Amino acid sequence: MKVVKLEETSEFNSGKMKRFFLVEDSSYFKIINFNLDEGVVFPVHSHDLDGDLSIQVLEGEGYFLGEANAEIPAKQGDILISQIREPHGVKAKTQMRILVTIAPPI
Amino acid sequence: MKVVKLEETSEFNSGKMKRFFLVEDSSYFKIINFNLDEGVVFPVHSHDLDGDLSIQVLEGEGYFLGEANAEIPAKQGDILISQIREPHGVKAKTQMRILVTIAPPI
Repeated sequence: MKVVKLEETSEFNSGKMKRFFLVEDSSYFKIINFNLDEGVVFPVHSHDLDGDLSIQVLEGEGYFLGEANAEIPAKQGDILISQIREPHGVKAKTQMRILVTIAPPI
Repeated sequence: MKVVKLEETSEFNSGKMKRFFLVEDSSYFKIINFNLDEGVVFPVHSHDLDGDLSIQVLEGEGYFLGEANAEIPAKQGDILISQIREPHGVKAKTQMRILVTIAPPI
């Protein structure tokens, strides 16, 4: 049992994406906080593996990205639920913090 | 792929806990939003099953509860990571919204 504080991982890198592993060691899920500077794109990708993931917008706004160039508006409190094998990505409009949970971890 | 909006599940019931299943159908995780009115306790419990869970404070403040009457202060942005078999619970001080992710789902 441990407590992670998202306020301690609020750092942004200019023009880039910053990644913080909140849980690296679990056999059951992986939780990662990504902080995207404004305009940064987390490119659409997928893995041919069984499993699901969630992408929760913690702060800021932008778009969830999907297959066929889909752009779904995404703001604080919105959660994308996707299979790991479905194409998924994120594009930041403002500075944007997201929390990604992957089960099982990959 | 679907998008869930936490702003749409912000309802509280006076003196009680309100539960919203955000993902009921996944084989890999379950995501539940609980809204606890001020003073409400989500009692300490555990299950003798393999797996992990996270409890993220979305709004408000209170305490994460653990074994031996442990009370860990919990506020917005704090995430408890626990095994499913470790005793865990939540006590709301103010109105408190939490997001619980359980993998594998139970």
